[in-house]
Amino acid sequence: MNLLDTIDQPTLLVDESIVRQNISRMANRAQQNNVAFRPHFKTHQSAVVGEWFRDYGVTKITVSSVEMAEYYAQHGWDDITIAFSLNIRQLPRIHALAQRIKLGALVENVEEVQSLSTLKNCTVDVWVKIDVGNHRTGLDWADTKAVAALCSQIQKIPFLRLKGLLTHSGHTYKAQSHSEVCVLFREGIDRLTWLRGELEKFGIIVLKISVGDTPGCTLCEDWFGADEVRPGNFIFYDAQQYGAGVCRFEDIAAAVACPVVAKHPERSEVILYGGAIHLSKDYQMMGEEKSYGLPCLQEGERWGKPIPGALVKTLSQEHGVVMVPGGEFEKVKVGDLLFIIPAHSCLTVQVLRKYITWDGQKISTLNV
Amino acid sequence: MNLLDTIDQPTLLVDESIVRQNISRMANRAQQNNVAFRPHFKTHQSAVVGEWFRDYGVTKITVSSVEMAEYYAQHGWDDITIAFSLNIRQLPRIHALAQRIKLGALVENVEEVQSLSTLKNCTVDVWVKIDVGNHRTGLDWADTKAVAALCSQIQKIPFLRLKGLLTHSGHTYKAQSHSEVCVLFREGIDRLTWLRGELEKFGIIVLKISVGDTPGCTLCEDWFGADEVRPGNFIFYDAQQYGAGVCRFEDIAAAVACPVVAKHPERSEVILYGGAIHLSKDYQMMGEEKSYGLPCLQEGERWGKPIPGALVKTLSQEHGVVMVPGGEFEKVKVGDLLFIIPAHSCLTVQVLRKYITWDGQKISTLNV
Repeated sequence: MNLLDTIDQPTLLVDESIVRQNISRMANRAQQNNVAFRPHFKTHQSAVVGEWFRDYGVTKITVSSVEMAEYYAQHGWDDITIAFSLNIRQLPRIHALAQRIKLGALVENVEEVQSLSTLKNCTVDVWVKIDVGNHRTGLDWADTKAVAALCSQIQKIPFLRLKGLLTHSGHTYKAQSHSEVCVLFREGIDRLTWLRGELEKFGIIVLKISVGDTPGCTLCEDWFGADEVRPGNFIFYDAQQYGAGVCRFEDIAAAVACPVVAKHPERSEVILYGGAIHLSKDYQMMGEEKSYGLPCLQEGERWGKPIPGALVKTLSQEHGVVMVPGGEFEKVKVGDLLFIIPAHSCLTVQVLRKYITWDGQKISTLNV
Repeated sequence: MNLLDTIDQPTLLVDESIVRQNISRMANRAQQNNVAFRPHFKTHQSAVVGEWFRDYGVTKITVSSVEMAEYYAQHGWDDITIAFSLNIRQLPRIHALAQRIKLGALVENVEEVQSLSTLKNCTVDVWVKIDVGNHRTGLDWADTKAVAALCSQIQKIPFLRLKGLLTHSGHTYKAQSHSEVCVLFREGIDRLTWLRGELEKFGIIVLKISVGDTPGCTLCEDWFGADEVRPGNFIFYDAQQYGAGVCRFEDIAAAVACPVVAKHPERSEVILYGGAIHLSKDYQMMGEEKSYGLPCLQEGERWGKPIPGALVKTLSQEHGVVMVPGGEFEKVKVGDLLFIIPAHSCLTVQVLRKYITWDGQKISTLNV
């Protein structure tokens, strides 16, 4: 019995060889640019997949929560940046981590620095979170005074090492073209470089610049000015990244195999066992319509190309309704598997919490 | 130290006394209507909370997956309907369940019945899934011939007990008013009643009618014609149900406590540790804008009323951006907890997978 025949419920499949190509490509580009590569591990969330990165020279990583830092510290990673504004309610856990590993923290306000100043018997690498245009978190890149004040506050505390300026150009995810992504990516590095120059006038020197979003790091070959990059999603990519032209279809490393439970020819709809709790409720626009992923037929023993014109129209808790147009509809049978390339692979990993590779290896994440 | 002081990351809090009121009210209404009460357990997903139902006389339940049926069977439930179109790839697990408990299955096509016909040494209660207007799954209520054909096919198989006609009027969730919900709820029962009458002409008799959606069962007191109801969400309700006028604010039994990590006065935005992996990406409309839940301040040792005009504007993987208008903004401090009433409590339970009650009891679900 082959692997796909054993699948009886929505199951995330990951292609290890594609994952390794994606890691290798990004690691090489970092090396060519002489930029430190600190990949974000929030997409795969797995200790096993983390080990794959070591084969490409990765020794330092980025995570998005204290919980994730604890998980990877338990699995042998000793240089971890928590790329999330420091949560002062978690200070005891941050303290415990800082005593154990080389820990990087992000701050953007005085409360956070005051909180860190109460720690003892540890050192913490501190990055100031800068907003270069995404407008989610961070101090505005043009507000030199505010950034200088925060840097000075950090520098007064002996065991805090002010490392530099960090940003996430999350607005590249909304860019409409390849060139717009590169303009925003470059703009982010340039704004941090300018800010670093301004801060030197306040006596704040030798700051590093850390950037990193998958669209920018994938599409823009020139990383000049950055000291460190932190992309994460590139390991799997997904339908959003493919739809935005960031990756090729053959770069996508993850899909959810979903059993077909019913068909409604009068609406050209296929009903999947595969809903919001398997795919997440993230979506992309396909023309004027939302789609919660990209439906593909099985081809041989893996997923094939996207079904032309098909989309995941609605998701409820367990059901997915897939519109499959005209000539393709008859190819789908009750009891088949349909493969859905997730709209957003990070969230799909989080809802399913585990996945398998083509050789049947079961991969757990921090949530299993 | 009180309970809330111990919370350092996004945490789902459930008010047991409100849950019990909600169960009691629904169980009483079922009794008054002389209708069997088979609550859907997909919202709370917990064996512990399942036990609370027993105090109100509940002995039979509804679930949304084979996995969930297995979980509750392990926890002592022996009369379970899987309210999801039978997935023929899971037939061995369905068989194992049917040999162990009184199992109800839903069918809507010949492939499913053929698949069931291969079982041995068990009996299965079979419900034909009917579409009364939701247009997700099921045979059209007006297509008497198709329903009669499927019923006849079922009746030919000795160990399948044709139980009746089952529908989920999921379109009540989109209704614009109390009266529209009741019109749709009544219409669903009436269409099944009509269909049952038509089927008698084909010699198919004594069919039961099973309905059940939270808006209908909550707002409509008259359940005449139904033999069984299966609401689920009513146990917790949520911001969608509150926003639609289905429940009162004081009927909501669940909220996610999220640490405040930053504030951006220039945008009137509060940044939470609390994102898509804690709340899910479901949302409701608040006027013209999306909101991924309903933000409330802490009041004493619990959540207070919704902050007037506030909304959860965006969610990324771990971050929530909450817009808190004018005079309320200053009440929120970095390090505080903000409570978010989930837009859709079923999905929030699924992403967080565990919760706590006010007395500190930790409640696990099938996914932990």
